[in-house]
Amino acid sequence: MTSLKGVIPYLVTPVDDSGAIKGDVLAKLTSDLIDKGVHGVTPLGSTGEFAYLNAQQRLKVVEVVVKAAAGRVPVVPGVASTSIQDAVAQVRAYKAAGADGIVAILEAYFPLSQQDVERYFMAVADAADAPVVLYTNPNFQRSDLSIDVIARLSRHPNIVGLKDASTNTGRLLSIINRCGDALDVYAASSHIAACVMMIGGKGWFAGPACAIPRESVRLYDLCHARRWDEAIALQKRLWAFNEAFATFNLAASVKAALQIQGYAVGEPIPPQSPISDACRSTMADILARLGDDA
Amino acid sequence: MTSLKGVIPYLVTPVDDSGAIKGDVLAKLTSDLIDKGVHGVTPLGSTGEFAYLNAQQRLKVVEVVVKAAAGRVPVVPGVASTSIQDAVAQVRAYKAAGADGIVAILEAYFPLSQQDVERYFMAVADAADAPVVLYTNPNFQRSDLSIDVIARLSRHPNIVGLKDASTNTGRLLSIINRCGDALDVYAASSHIAACVMMIGGKGWFAGPACAIPRESVRLYDLCHARRWDEAIALQKRLWAFNEAFATFNLAASVKAALQIQGYAVGEPIPPQSPISDACRSTMADILARLGDDA
Amino acid sequence: MTSLKGVIPYLVTPVDDSGAIKGDVLAKLTSDLIDKGVHGVTPLGSTGEFAYLNAQQRLKVVEVVVKAAAGRVPVVPGVASTSIQDAVAQVRAYKAAGADGIVAILEAYFPLSQQDVERYFMAVADAADAPVVLYTNPNFQRSDLSIDVIARLSRHPNIVGLKDASTNTGRLLSIINRCGDALDVYAASSHIAACVMMIGGKGWFAGPACAIPRESVRLYDLCHARRWDEAIALQKRLWAFNEAFATFNLAASVKAALQIQGYAVGEPIPPQSPISDACRSTMADILARLGDDA
Amino acid sequence: MTSLKGVIPYLVTPVDDSGAIKGDVLAKLTSDLIDKGVHGVTPLGSTGEFAYLNAQQRLKVVEVVVKAAAGRVPVVPGVASTSIQDAVAQVRAYKAAGADGIVAILEAYFPLSQQDVERYFMAVADAADAPVVLYTNPNFQRSDLSIDVIARLSRHPNIVGLKDASTNTGRLLSIINRCGDALDVYAASSHIAACVMMIGGKGWFAGPACAIPRESVRLYDLCHARRWDEAIALQKRLWAFNEAFATFNLAASVKAALQIQGYAVGEPIPPQSPISDACRSTMADILARLGDDA
Repeated sequence: MTSLKGVIPYLVTPVDDSGAIKGDVLAKLTSDLIDKGVHGVTPLGSTGEFAYLNAQQRLKVVEVVVKAAAGRVPVVPGVASTSIQDAVAQVRAYKAAGADGIVAILEAYFPLSQQDVERYFMAVADAADAPVVLYTNPNFQRSDLSIDVIARLSRHPNIVGLKDASTNTGRLLSIINRCGDALDVYAASSHIAACVMMIGGKGWFAGPACAIPRESVRLYDLCHARRWDEAIALQKRLWAFNEAFATFNLAASVKAALQIQGYAVGEPIPPQSPISDACRSTMADILARLGDDA
Repeated sequence: MTSLKGVIPYLVTPVDDSGAIKGDVLAKLTSDLIDKGVHGVTPLGSTGEFAYLNAQQRLKVVEVVVKAAAGRVPVVPGVASTSIQDAVAQVRAYKAAGADGIVAILEAYFPLSQQDVERYFMAVADAADAPVVLYTNPNFQRSDLSIDVIARLSRHPNIVGLKDASTNTGRLLSIINRCGDALDVYAASSHIAACVMMIGGKGWFAGPACAIPRESVRLYDLCHARRWDEAIALQKRLWAFNEAFATFNLAASVKAALQIQGYAVGEPIPPQSPISDACRSTMADILARLGDDA
Repeated sequence: MTSLKGVIPYLVTPVDDSGAIKGDVLAKLTSDLIDKGVHGVTPLGSTGEFAYLNAQQRLKVVEVVVKAAAGRVPVVPGVASTSIQDAVAQVRAYKAAGADGIVAILEAYFPLSQQDVERYFMAVADAADAPVVLYTNPNFQRSDLSIDVIARLSRHPNIVGLKDASTNTGRLLSIINRCGDALDVYAASSHIAACVMMIGGKGWFAGPACAIPRESVRLYDLCHARRWDEAIALQKRLWAFNEAFATFNLAASVKAALQIQGYAVGEPIPPQSPISDACRSTMADILARLGDDA
Repeated sequence: MTSLKGVIPYLVTPVDDSGAIKGDVLAKLTSDLIDKGVHGVTPLGSTGEFAYLNAQQRLKVVEVVVKAAAGRVPVVPGVASTSIQDAVAQVRAYKAAGADGIVAILEAYFPLSQQDVERYFMAVADAADAPVVLYTNPNFQRSDLSIDVIARLSRHPNIVGLKDASTNTGRLLSIINRCGDALDVYAASSHIAACVMMIGGKGWFAGPACAIPRESVRLYDLCHARRWDEAIALQKRLWAFNEAFATFNLAASVKAALQIQGYAVGEPIPPQSPISDACRSTMADILARLGDDA
């Protein structure tokens, strides 16, 4: 099965003023990131504003990214739903469109029991016929996965990894200690990627990597080579980007950074506010300091 | 403009095992409730599991209910979205299908500023060309409306009311004191309806009224006649239903009650669990004690 | 046993700049409130800043209030602690100083099980040899009481009542339905007192009654006479005071109101901020409009 | 000024059934830990149940620990209060009793502004005339410190460090990036100590170090020598202890471990429950596996 490791950016979804997907901008961004060394791409993550796109828009995003990636790296779109039936339909559609794997996200409205949550992820994994990465985010989803449920899910042959968007790095160590080789663990931008690599992580799925791909890949390479002191020195420099990302709206901050870099990705989808001047100026400062493209 | 007052049940959405809407069951439930005296009906509320239905399913629900209501009482469907564009599309579709008004619900994924929230509701109201009731629910939505924003929204000619699903009854009094005649206020099942009527409420939108319509209408009539001591005596008897509704999943508890009454409404949409035996038996006890149909 | 009903103000604790209790101001406030008709007084509630006073200061407050009340109305001080041993010591000290009953408050640091919480209140009740009112406040305490635990506690002969400072009025109806005559229920300023009276409440413990005692007693009398339409009209006027109380720091807002009325109660205990000009001016406006002393 | 680094255990407070401090057990534990290599000791932390002890008990704890430490390592007691006046009194009493520094904890009842919080810590630092470590714990305190306030506090000559008991390790990196050499940062048991050391931490204050002092010191030494791969291997083994600590009551879990090791530390202070059999047995398993004393 496709192996997932390294730096996997969450792609933003460029949208014009009428709400239409800007396929050409998305394709160019995808292709450029792969040229700069990222190890995979994930459309339709939180940063990709999946929660604001309808079924047709989501499918189009996957199609554009698959075509632009052209088999160079795995394309692993997010599948997010409140309902099993809809999630399974998404899995099938994205697989048919050429996706190499799935990041499985549970949206919840009414509170769910852990059993209900487990049932959802099992159904997605059954339908996937491809590697599935569980996504947990206690900030935006209403249900979190207990470590017992994660351990059970890790035994499903299609469930290969977990990406956790909490800020609780210790929880990742508990999962790694509990699941061992049965489950690869990935960092999010809320964790210190170098720390997660040090405890056994396999890489990270994160929005900021859209804007600082080269530095992100360099950080991954240092971690992979276990050159921890150099890794942490670079990590400390890059952290300003993660901080901005945590402070501003996720999509807004990455879209701001990409606009500065010349990608016409447009604004976050309304009623989210257009990118603030403060956000844009913070992003410009950070990018200037990082000089990723130098 | 259509006036909204009295008892307006949130209709459940009957679904079969394949996930298809059971239009005949929904039509019969709608018609029966109107026969029993309710003053309006709201499909696609929380209890109606809007969060688990796709666009086609939602539209079908509205069409079925409009046809079954046949103009006897206002049909006021829920419009819920994370995005302005999608919400406006829903408003237009439901109006075209014959809806008499809209209950406007904001779903959120990323946190929104109060200005963003206001912009959403203004856009829905602009598109509605019909009475709009704002719906606030701090338990299930991620953004709540400040009283300042509510006061501004109340000046929009289409925004006629507010239904609040918090448990904070004092907040309703603050809104009533602040907005006066500019905004009708409705209770939810989390409030004591008779208390909300006493402080100036105009009625209630609530799931339990699906299962106890006659007693609900009797309570409304006592409140409307300002016969408070009789009203509160009845309210205290009916409260067990609200308690069960708050304890179990909303859709599950009303579906359980309706199954007991002979409506084949099916189970909550997966991964929500089928109705538990405990829920079913509590509901049976409560219905037996209330004897609504006697 | 002493019966508790009606309007029972939470007394502020006047403190000078050196942190010493201003016994004379507290005595005069107590005596004046009794002259104006309140049915009891509670020193050492939240509004009384118990959380900022040491054991010696707390005892002095009780002694001053008992002496000033001079047996005219029950004095029911708050007993608040994290530890059973300390709570029992407080109960004994306040009883010895002449207290007629106890408002029992649980402070928590580590999370407690419902059993631990029950054990605390049982120990306080065993030690009290006087009426005990349970105080629950999900905003400031870390542990809330389940209705099952409340029902068990209500069987203790010394536990006569419950005062709930949540905003969830429906919860009070659930408690009233469950415990019936075994437990008197009182409102807090976060509830609409007239609504709580309508569903069976026996009165209210509240900070605002320090500043608007006559109007509060008038409201109680209307409720007691079941003149609900007049009661609610008065309640709507008084509500502005409850709103201010919820917006500003509790102690700060009541201290501001009392300063305006000529009581030299001083400022909230540091590091709480001195009363803001905005708070003072809002309070002045409200008091002018209510004209309690006219 | 005394330098604080390395492993600084939060000492439990041994209490007998009558609630009296068991000074002899506390003295022996303190002395043994120092013999095993810890770099300092902190009585009256969360694990030390400060929240359950009165002023006399707290002072006795400090006196016992200072005497037992006998100048071999710094004694840095916790000072915790809701009020500035009381906190300053504690600082003076503990300094007079021989404390070498202070861990400053803010208890809150009413919500405080960031300015109020800053005022509290400044007042404690002014009074200390010794190194002060800020303690932040969003789980148990009601007020958290913004990074702006932390940066301002770090300029106070007595404020030398910060220990953060959240689970958000990224926040520590933000603080380290922002404050640089002006503020030493320490881990808590909720963080992965080796990760905090890698990003620039100076050690950790933590309850588990009471029970596994030798392994804790060995971990510190590996980190200090920047032997990260060995450090993380040991860290992964020790993590089970942190997990147990997070799952059970903090004081209960460390008291259980110490009882197993032969220290008659008694039970957590009521109404906290005595140590559960499950907790005791988990602790025995973990200690057996770690074999700290081998």
